[in-house]
Amino acid sequence: MPKISEKGKQMPASPIRKLTPLAERAKANGIKVYHLNIGQPDIETPAVMLDAIKNIDFKVWAYTASEGTVAYRKSLAHYYNKLGYNITPEDILVTTGGSEAIIISLMTCLNQRDEVIIPEPFYANYNAYACQSDSVVKPILSVIENGFALPPISEFEKSITEKTKAIMICNPNNPTGYLYSKQEFLDLRALALKHDLYIIADEAYREFCYDGKEFLSPMHFEGLEEHAIIIDTVSKRYSACGARLGCIITKNKAFMEIALRFAQARLSPGMVEQIAGEAAALYTPDEYFTEVNKEYAKRRDILVSALNKMDGVYCPNPGGAFYVVAKLPIDNADKFCRWMLEEFSHEGQTVMLAPASGFYATKGVGYDEVRMAYVLNQHDLTNAMICLEKALQVYPGRTVADKNETVNTFS
Amino acid sequence: MPKISEKGKQMPASPIRKLTPLAERAKANGIKVYHLNIGQPDIETPAVMLDAIKNIDFKVWAYTASEGTVAYRKSLAHYYNKLGYNITPEDILVTTGGSEAIIISLMTCLNQRDEVIIPEPFYANYNAYACQSDSVVKPILSVIENGFALPPISEFEKSITEKTKAIMICNPNNPTGYLYSKQEFLDLRALALKHDLYIIADEAYREFCYDGKEFLSPMHFEGLEEHAIIIDTVSKRYSACGARLGCIITKNKAFMEIALRFAQARLSPGMVEQIAGEAAALYTPDEYFTEVNKEYAKRRDILVSALNKMDGVYCPNPGGAFYVVAKLPIDNADKFCRWMLEEFSHEGQTVMLAPASGFYATKGVGYDEVRMAYVLNQHDLTNAMICLEKALQVYPGRTVADKNETVNTFS
Ligand SMILES: Cc1ncc(COP(=O)(O)O)c(C=O)c1O
Ligand SMILES: Cc1ncc(COP(=O)(O)O)c(C=O)c1O
Repeated sequence: MPKISEKGKQMPASPIRKLTPLAERAKANGIKVYHLNIGQPDIETPAVMLDAIKNIDFKVWAYTASEGTVAYRKSLAHYYNKLGYNITPEDILVTTGGSEAIIISLMTCLNQRDEVIIPEPFYANYNAYACQSDSVVKPILSVIENGFALPPISEFEKSITEKTKAIMICNPNNPTGYLYSKQEFLDLRALALKHDLYIIADEAYREFCYDGKEFLSPMHFEGLEEHAIIIDTVSKRYSACGARLGCIITKNKAFMEIALRFAQARLSPGMVEQIAGEAAALYTPDEYFTEVNKEYAKRRDILVSALNKMDGVYCPNPGGAFYVVAKLPIDNADKFCRWMLEEFSHEGQTVMLAPASGFYATKGVGYDEVRMAYVLNQHDLTNAMICLEKALQVYPGRTVADKNETVNTFS
Repeated sequence: MPKISEKGKQMPASPIRKLTPLAERAKANGIKVYHLNIGQPDIETPAVMLDAIKNIDFKVWAYTASEGTVAYRKSLAHYYNKLGYNITPEDILVTTGGSEAIIISLMTCLNQRDEVIIPEPFYANYNAYACQSDSVVKPILSVIENGFALPPISEFEKSITEKTKAIMICNPNNPTGYLYSKQEFLDLRALALKHDLYIIADEAYREFCYDGKEFLSPMHFEGLEEHAIIIDTVSKRYSACGARLGCIITKNKAFMEIALRFAQARLSPGMVEQIAGEAAALYTPDEYFTEVNKEYAKRRDILVSALNKMDGVYCPNPGGAFYVVAKLPIDNADKFCRWMLEEFSHEGQTVMLAPASGFYATKGVGYDEVRMAYVLNQHDLTNAMICLEKALQVYPGRTVADKNETVNTFS
């Protein structure tokens, strides 16, 4: 039999999806499973977007320009400029999801074995993209005690080598929900300019900021024109994950020229998606976001307050996205998540969570943390929290945590 | 300014698209340009496919399984089994176009600097995919004199090293239109089994075979279960290039497991596309293909006979796809193609061709050849041929070719 490549063998299997077979078995046994493990929102896609699909009127489903259609890039520029990005359609490269935007960006910026610094915990697939592009992730620990704020710049400084080419952040953050502050951006800017590093900012959750907090982007900071590479996607913004429509935004022309070559090799992003994306960018009513954000904020409140009421549990109150990372009084989150699916049920129900260890690159960190996505309606979320509380009470691997040890004044 | 990666700098710019700015300028000067340079068919997408898009009835545009939906893979298995592939839905991994299928396959099979042998001329983007996956293309020359048949197996044997992991073919071929014979497949099978190599077969043009000739796939040959990796796409089959929907087919489970990891990292293929693709696979009437093939065969006849009537021109009569490679009495095809756009016009018209050199990996070969895609209607094609004939008569770099030297008895 012909051999498999080493890279293939090293590609990490998805830590979010690996428990899926256990969930399937639980369901086959008649147990209702609340899925808090994946970032697939239940929110409806804006009607303008779905209507655009239904109203297509072409006869030939053709390739578009590799960088995306002019019409779609214009509509995106319009959307971004309302946010103060100050860009033109030429600063946008349309991609097949945010996923492709990240892979292309890493391939464009980093040589083999070059390093990208990423605060951890981080979106687990960053590991896969680094593997695929032969680059190396240098994690810097952010901690639950301060709600996963940006680690001190001195920690970044310590990690920088001559192989460091980029810093990657996700704002608001998946998995922590943390929203970066103006001061944190100022610090990052100083660092990037000092060491001439790219700042790759994944803004997949831009539209989800709560409590009146302001969203900031590297695009809002002067002096980063050549350093800022923005990753975006319609997946979460319009609850349109299946559209596979994202983009890269940058004012760095040299980067754009090379990123376009990778885009040309795969020919074209989807045509129907760009038509739908254009409609969404131009015509999604502001109320859509107001309503969705109100709903997410309520869910977050339900989740965070239920979690912090549970004995030994600590969950910071995040400013954005639709995830939380919580610390549980357990020996091992991986074991706990399996046990929830294989051995536990409460009134015929159980909860599927994502062990946080999959979001850390450093081994042994976050072993007692889980990530939860609040992509279920309020009723289901409330039930899921009741289930979780019951589970923690009877879980054999429960630790005797002193609540005051882990909780601090930031919550 | 932060640096660009070496890989990025090495990524080849598209040889097919590089003359586009000259064509734009010609058009701006009021000249009608016949585009024979790109493989974007003018044929209509089947109505069942477009109707499936218009009739979508979901509310949340969600991710699908990374390997594709069960429904779509079932419909594909149905389509392939009618062709005698004898596969199950589990043997199919749905991808974002044939492009992604090739990239994932190369990453799964080849280590860095491993070699894939490809008969040249070949689809130019194979060079880009090899660059992106850090593998090395070893070209083996096929020649216009025998219509670009498979080069002798002895040539393959000479090229095989310990780094050789795969042979890649495209059948019917882009750019030559050549359709591989049963004997050629038997030879390839013997070679692959002897050296334990993958056979990656790109079947993007499977449905386009003329003169009653039979299409063959490695899937039709016993003993290749672990060696055959099939690349497919709906782009050309249904004139649905903008759908970005392809797949990998293989019965090799170890390959499939690893290919799936790359697919999981990018999350999901498009959802609407899979709905449309399912409708196409199940309900495209046979007459659709009969009609389209009749049309393409007529166009090929127009092109091939017009070309061979031109003084000093030779064009083999290909059995499939919708391309021909022709030898012209010129000093240099790149220069000629530029000249056609910049300096020539006949009755306000000119023709855009693709210089064949971009389809060869070996330098200096095919310098007097061009590729033409017959994706225009018969009327336009006829006009384009008149234009080309006039151009060849006045082109300053014309060579005094003896027609009998290049033409041979195979045509
Ligand atoms: C932080 C982050 N970035 C990027 C992505 C990729 O999204 P997509 O490829 O659907 O655009 C995701 C998806 O969950 C994400 O959470
Ligand atoms: C031989 C061949 N393979 C693969 C492709 C990629 O097609 P797509 O990514 O549109 O499926 C093409 C497109 O022209 C092609 O000609």
